[in-house]
Amino acid sequence: MAKPFIHPDFILTNETAKKLYHEHAEKMPIIDYHCHLSPQMVAENKKFESIAQIWLMGDHYKWRALRSNGIAEKYITGKDSSDWEKFEKWAETVPYTFRNPLYHWTHLELKTAFGIEKTLNPETAREIYDQCNDIIKNDPKFTPKGLMEFYNVETVCTTDDPIDSLEWHKKVKEDGTKTQMLPTWRPDKAMMVEKPADFRAYVESLSKASGMNISNYNEFIDALQNRHDFFESMGCRLSDHGIEEFYAEDFTDSEISAIFNKVYGGKELSDEEIRKFKSAMMLVFGRQDAASGWTQQFHYGTIRNNNSKMFKLIGADTGFDSIGEFATAKNCAKFLDRLNSEDKLAKTILYNLNPCANEVLATMIGNFQDGTIAGKIQFGAAWWFLDQKDGMQKQMNALSVLGLLSRFVGMLTDSRSFLSYPRHEYFRRILCNLLGTDIENGEIPYSGYEEKRMNQMVEDICYNNAKQYFKF
Amino acid sequence: MAKPFIHPDFILTNETAKKLYHEHAEKMPIIDYHCHLSPQMVAENKKFESIAQIWLMGDHYKWRALRSNGIAEKYITGKDSSDWEKFEKWAETVPYTFRNPLYHWTHLELKTAFGIEKTLNPETAREIYDQCNDIIKNDPKFTPKGLMEFYNVETVCTTDDPIDSLEWHKKVKEDGTKTQMLPTWRPDKAMMVEKPADFRAYVESLSKASGMNISNYNEFIDALQNRHDFFESMGCRLSDHGIEEFYAEDFTDSEISAIFNKVYGGKELSDEEIRKFKSAMMLVFGRQDAASGWTQQFHYGTIRNNNSKMFKLIGADTGFDSIGEFATAKNCAKFLDRLNSEDKLAKTILYNLNPCANEVLATMIGNFQDGTIAGKIQFGAAWWFLDQKDGMQKQMNALSVLGLLSRFVGMLTDSRSFLSYPRHEYFRRILCNLLGTDIENGEIPYSGYEEKRMNQMVEDICYNNAKQYFKF
Amino acid sequence: MAKPFIHPDFILTNETAKKLYHEHAEKMPIIDYHCHLSPQMVAENKKFESIAQIWLMGDHYKWRALRSNGIAEKYITGKDSSDWEKFEKWAETVPYTFRNPLYHWTHLELKTAFGIEKTLNPETAREIYDQCNDIIKNDPKFTPKGLMEFYNVETVCTTDDPIDSLEWHKKVKEDGTKTQMLPTWRPDKAMMVEKPADFRAYVESLSKASGMNISNYNEFIDALQNRHDFFESMGCRLSDHGIEEFYAEDFTDSEISAIFNKVYGGKELSDEEIRKFKSAMMLVFGRQDAASGWTQQFHYGTIRNNNSKMFKLIGADTGFDSIGEFATAKNCAKFLDRLNSEDKLAKTILYNLNPCANEVLATMIGNFQDGTIAGKIQFGAAWWFLDQKDGMQKQMNALSVLGLLSRFVGMLTDSRSFLSYPRHEYFRRILCNLLGTDIENGEIPYSGYEEKRMNQMVEDICYNNAKQYFKF
Repeated sequence: MAKPFIHPDFILTNETAKKLYHEHAEKMPIIDYHCHLSPQMVAENKKFESIAQIWLMGDHYKWRALRSNGIAEKYITGKDSSDWEKFEKWAETVPYTFRNPLYHWTHLELKTAFGIEKTLNPETAREIYDQCNDIIKNDPKFTPKGLMEFYNVETVCTTDDPIDSLEWHKKVKEDGTKTQMLPTWRPDKAMMVEKPADFRAYVESLSKASGMNISNYNEFIDALQNRHDFFESMGCRLSDHGIEEFYAEDFTDSEISAIFNKVYGGKELSDEEIRKFKSAMMLVFGRQDAASGWTQQFHYGTIRNNNSKMFKLIGADTGFDSIGEFATAKNCAKFLDRLNSEDKLAKTILYNLNPCANEVLATMIGNFQDGTIAGKIQFGAAWWFLDQKDGMQKQMNALSVLGLLSRFVGMLTDSRSFLSYPRHEYFRRILCNLLGTDIENGEIPYSGYEEKRMNQMVEDICYNNAKQYFKF
Repeated sequence: MAKPFIHPDFILTNETAKKLYHEHAEKMPIIDYHCHLSPQMVAENKKFESIAQIWLMGDHYKWRALRSNGIAEKYITGKDSSDWEKFEKWAETVPYTFRNPLYHWTHLELKTAFGIEKTLNPETAREIYDQCNDIIKNDPKFTPKGLMEFYNVETVCTTDDPIDSLEWHKKVKEDGTKTQMLPTWRPDKAMMVEKPADFRAYVESLSKASGMNISNYNEFIDALQNRHDFFESMGCRLSDHGIEEFYAEDFTDSEISAIFNKVYGGKELSDEEIRKFKSAMMLVFGRQDAASGWTQQFHYGTIRNNNSKMFKLIGADTGFDSIGEFATAKNCAKFLDRLNSEDKLAKTILYNLNPCANEVLATMIGNFQDGTIAGKIQFGAAWWFLDQKDGMQKQMNALSVLGLLSRFVGMLTDSRSFLSYPRHEYFRRILCNLLGTDIENGEIPYSGYEEKRMNQMVEDICYNNAKQYFKF
Repeated sequence: MAKPFIHPDFILTNETAKKLYHEHAEKMPIIDYHCHLSPQMVAENKKFESIAQIWLMGDHYKWRALRSNGIAEKYITGKDSSDWEKFEKWAETVPYTFRNPLYHWTHLELKTAFGIEKTLNPETAREIYDQCNDIIKNDPKFTPKGLMEFYNVETVCTTDDPIDSLEWHKKVKEDGTKTQMLPTWRPDKAMMVEKPADFRAYVESLSKASGMNISNYNEFIDALQNRHDFFESMGCRLSDHGIEEFYAEDFTDSEISAIFNKVYGGKELSDEEIRKFKSAMMLVFGRQDAASGWTQQFHYGTIRNNNSKMFKLIGADTGFDSIGEFATAKNCAKFLDRLNSEDKLAKTILYNLNPCANEVLATMIGNFQDGTIAGKIQFGAAWWFLDQKDGMQKQMNALSVLGLLSRFVGMLTDSRSFLSYPRHEYFRRILCNLLGTDIENGEIPYSGYEEKRMNQMVEDICYNNAKQYFKF
């Protein structure tokens, strides 16, 4: 019989890589500083019901693969097919995902969470389905908190709107967990002025959440600051911003006040007004984070909801987004420079979706390193579509040759799934294999001082750098 | 003596790669679903005259290499040099093409078509020249049909204008061939409204070809549909579109009618009008193809005829085109979405020329996979300048990690040469080497069910996927 | 004890690579055809004072790494820290640069210039510091001329403004050197019309330098031609142009004359006027170079001085530049085509900063190869941020598959440091490793004629191609 697909040295192609992984990377706890887990699910901590529930609900990576494989929507997001039917279609599709990260993720999850070493395919589908459901039923770790603890997750940061009450965060804190769960400030809607009615509704919710009256731009900012203070009090240490591109228009305060009044009053804004307002808000957000010592994160470059037919049927985040093309380097520099000139540039992580921008970002961060802390400005880990072996290698290679890999805060899942922590293992194996290969090729010395430094570097990227950087 | 350069395991660096190639890839017939062969040459099926005729006439890849090597135009496209002189210059240049695909193509062609294992260089030039010409003279396979049969080509699709009578296709069908030859609908000129006189002349030719009167936009579309029907009756299953970028402007029907009247009436259009007209025509073409169940292909991203001096001297397609820079993802998505919203999105293949767009396209296709057939929207094989080992690997890697490589319809030559079929062999070797390497690294399991799936996957990408997808 | 980090086969992973390097690459002299050395320092030829002076003053690569490592500016460019303190911080940072080219450069320099095989880290810092300073004090080669001779540098080309008197070049020539030092024409300021006062001051300096009156555009061009002739008389064979992107606007002579008068008269120009003026000047520069048989170089794609706070504190070229995003292929083609149409396209080298443009440039050069000399239009060696192993490999791979690597004029340092010549060694090792790997993989034959050609190709890229191309 062949050895299992997922084995202890998976991805590790040389002895040094194995040593780095098994002696240094493997043991480090996980800090998952950016994800989209549901705080409510953690707080309620209900047992999971089935492998279909864990794997197939809400995972748009799998949905895309299913559609590409010619599977009808009925078996993907449809309500007229059973869990087993959906699982069967997924099992049928898995062997068609050779070379796709889904193939590795699937088997890493089966191995680590369920102890299943068989590969998933139509012949094993029923057996694995029943076995997983049996394990889920009987193994007490199959709750949100249980899985986080099982995977040695020390901290997770969820993604939350300023108007969120953070009640579930409160409950989790009160109930106690081994895994610290902290909120992240994601104020995207506060600059989403494309639709006046939606914006007004958001401002009204913000007014309610903050208990503050909002009738003009300054009061709007005050209310945001009030919520920012509240998030701070709840342990928040990061913000996150999903933007198409960087906005750095010139504007005056009176222009922004007028734009606020106009959109709040229900009138549509011109493109120029929208860009000016976003430019102003990004500076406001940046100053707030700098004042609190937080880290600001920017995820840019997606084009979203490209399939309007499916958007109408099943909404956003269902697998119809893709990689955009933006030339936004000058605006990114201008935006960061404005904050830096005011001494209000917070710790910052820049994430790109188009790998063409790897070298742009890997050099951009160098413009604003100021020696106050190591790696103050970070080139974020390979994101979304790039969160796979090829994408991670390219991100780490670009960061290595154009900056300091040793100061990288490392991996995050960005996930909605409680089973996605093996992606940290996957990242660590890839990291150790890169470094081990360089060492075996004689490109990095590995004895004496340098051996200790290298071992430390692996542990740092896996855990210590994030620990020190975010100061949870 | 050293082993021959081109040997059975060329490109195959590990045992699994060799097994995949020799047991699965090698035996599959070729479906060359996009090329620029001359239907007339096939129909007439004349014996080739000389290696100079086959190799050096019309091959702008070789011309570029010759010019880069400092060879005077006289020996490239000039009329004052003999065949032997031209061949001699080419043989002198070949050893300067180390690492360029021309070096591999040249020796693959010498080996497979002529059985010549010597490398081409100034010392062997005369001998190889004489030997090739001798073989061409004596070996009956050196006709268009003979070579296609020799290389096990099951189907070729040529590239044809809607006004083409397809008379040569008719003759080939009547005469009978082992290789099925089908036309492809390439209506580029029907949206080429930059020069009013040229457009009017084209419309008049279209009127003649269709036997229909054309005095307005609707009649123009009707005449195109008439030709589309005719192409369909002749076995056409694909369209092809050469565009700089994707056009997806907003427009009204009355605007398009007016633009048609203006340009047909001889007046120059504004840039905006040109873009609107192209946007409208691309939708028309797309709807026609959807109605017929065809596959539409888009080749975008070239900047053409950059050397105006040489364009005046020797015209287009002579080696003076290069890779452009276009940010066209949003328009591509908008264009595909419009058709998809009408349920008129045909099977589609997107080809990029700038490798920077690999990840953009590899994720774009996922937006419109609808589960009706596997791999409905395809990221096309590495095209033109990218049709080489590095380019193919990058295209297949991007498709693998962002989509399903297993559903890829695979290779095509896009060639004008009857000797270019070894490029399929080259592609297959590269494919098998990629997969074999992954298997040997433990990244894909290869036993039991997965071994059978992998073997099938190789055969599918080489042949079956195209067979099923195009439904010739 | 482990073998030294830098050893004879550093980077060379196979036997053929070792053979190519040791038998062919290693022995070739260096032609450093583009650098930023100080002619005055060469002419004065003073002994260097210390390793801190050689390594840490003016090296913005190291400064960026220090800042990224959390080192305060005081220890980087500050005046309140001692040489030892600065060196200590650098030694502390070096082990954090694993995978960055600085790690390799540092140890190549220690090994080749100082014979030091220990790795630099906090434990060895003091010893290496003292040893280096001792060697610098006692070894007579530690002068500008001495180091250039030691590293077998045959020719260096500095970078000089048209108004430069070239007095230091004169002195070096009169005093005699083993290394030929030639000026390069860098007329960037002659098209820098953004600030009228600065431009006027420049024109006045040009008037003084040329001894010619300048009161209009034609006289401005005449004065430039006068200096061009002077540079020619001083042995200049190259020009160099630092541009954000290529300018190729349409304009008339009278427009350009009027723009000159306007800016010279102290009025700010519109963006359109600036672009037109730059477009005109680039053609003027190109014609002048063509007439003299020089080679023109274009370095494009940087975004500079992104950190305005640091710019105010310590000025330009201090480590705050990064890689930009420009879609300039069409303008590049148009610019080159204009000169080519007039038969005034000089030998040209195009350097990109964003690796996304590798394939664009590697195909662009093919548009204007005219067979007059081999490799007339060159895709320049990996520049600045890309001047590292990954960047060089990508540049050489793109050039290989899309053009003729064999005709590449090869490496240059672009450096301000007299210790940077090991970067040629680094390049040569990477080149030989690429070629050796291809040979061992059976992708290039290596026996008989092809073995000789390959050996010659290595020597050509290291030295002969540049020698023949520039005609110093």
